[in-house]
Amino acid sequence: MKAAEKRRITRMTSAGRVELDDAVAVEKKVRVAVNGEEVMSLYCSPERVRELIVGLFMTEGIIEGRWCIDEMTVEYGDEILVDIPADGKVSLDRGTLISGCLGGVTFSSSAGGGPAAAGEVRIGAERLRALFAEFQRTPGLYELTGCIHNAAVSDDERIIAHAEDIGRHNAVDKVIGRCLIEGITLEDKIMHVSGRLSSEMASKCARWKIPVLVSRAAPTSLAIDIAERSGITMIGFMRPSRFNVYTHAYRIL
Amino acid sequence: MKAAEKRRITRMTSAGRVELDDAVAVEKKVRVAVNGEEVMSLYCSPERVRELIVGLFMTEGIIEGRWCIDEMTVEYGDEILVDIPADGKVSLDRGTLISGCLGGVTFSSSAGGGPAAAGEVRIGAERLRALFAEFQRTPGLYELTGCIHNAAVSDDERIIAHAEDIGRHNAVDKVIGRCLIEGITLEDKIMHVSGRLSSEMASKCARWKIPVLVSRAAPTSLAIDIAERSGITMIGFMRPSRFNVYTHAYRIL
Repeated sequence: MKAAEKRRITRMTSAGRVELDDAVAVEKKVRVAVNGEEVMSLYCSPERVRELIVGLFMTEGIIEGRWCIDEMTVEYGDEILVDIPADGKVSLDRGTLISGCLGGVTFSSSAGGGPAAAGEVRIGAERLRALFAEFQRTPGLYELTGCIHNAAVSDDERIIAHAEDIGRHNAVDKVIGRCLIEGITLEDKIMHVSGRLSSEMASKCARWKIPVLVSRAAPTSLAIDIAERSGITMIGFMRPSRFNVYTHAYRIL
Repeated sequence: MKAAEKRRITRMTSAGRVELDDAVAVEKKVRVAVNGEEVMSLYCSPERVRELIVGLFMTEGIIEGRWCIDEMTVEYGDEILVDIPADGKVSLDRGTLISGCLGGVTFSSSAGGGPAAAGEVRIGAERLRALFAEFQRTPGLYELTGCIHNAAVSDDERIIAHAEDIGRHNAVDKVIGRCLIEGITLEDKIMHVSGRLSSEMASKCARWKIPVLVSRAAPTSLAIDIAERSGITMIGFMRPSRFNVYTHAYRIL
């Protein structure tokens, strides 16, 4: 399903008005059911919905018990319908631990509740800037639609996984979901995001012990507190010539 | 309670690293209870929390029945605790109609479910640009923190109400809440916002029949669909020299 489509618009300029076709980001409602019973709905770009739901459900601990991504169904239409067969019960409270069968391998979540992020990542400022520049150069829908957030996971050498979505949290959930599905360890990686660093963004990284979180935008006070407590090196206002480190600056050489 | 505070940060530049104090946007968790029982929590800037909760609860129709804003309590601390005495029951499903006693006057909601926005607003392109420029010039926390969204309501002559928040939906809820509390009619007004136009942004305006919605950012496909159906003139990419009208362009002269 396409993540952008043409719409007829009226463009007003000082020269007057003109009608033309312009690309807009597609936004779809996703209804997620567990064993046929709807448990939540959300809005997203209609791409990588499987990764989105895996990332979201694993990060937020929504299913207590066993479930298998291979049995999850995703049906595209006016709305997107997801159904997850599961043994466990659904908990919309946060902080519950889960285990899921990912790609046939039983997955035992080590995220949340445990010790703080302690990944032995150390990275030079120049290297980090180069990685963020690579992340920002990744071809995507932003230029087409002006309406897309991005997230990527890298090690200290290259971008490993990238995702985009109309929602900045969704983009992070998609990239985490992709890493979980592909068995990529997150505890020694860097998360790059295009959007603001709110408390939920910091919590998502804390849950998977991602040691470095970088954005071109600003953090909030609560995001800084969570990063401080969780051992995350949090960086904002990433620019070609400078950036701000809010917590645990020792990882930046 | 302050919406920005100083934090110690490390700034990395090509000249090396320096430690300094920098302003960051304060983010607080708000726990909202009805008759002492917690019904939801959310994160926001700790300003105009009363307006935020009134705008959110009235727009989403969370209390079915009667409640009075004068009896609502807001307690500021590490978290912000709100309690609303109410006769009605709480519904976290959307689309329920509510009535609330605002400022001692029984308020009967006319939003939602009714006919489409039909406010007889007509406005010249130059006038609209000037109003949006005035909205963008409103002094606020963005320059200090790089982390704040804005919303404002205007008529065709001037900005009437303005609000800011770390969340773009919160900013809209706050400005709607303020208009409801002050008895300002929304059906003939213009909503100005700094953030993207997602489906929820369009729905909030549709619920109060706000006929014109303007942003400097982009809309999604679903936001355009909702504006089309609801009779809203939706404008994106507002710039000094041009803007795009996505729906009901007849209101722009």
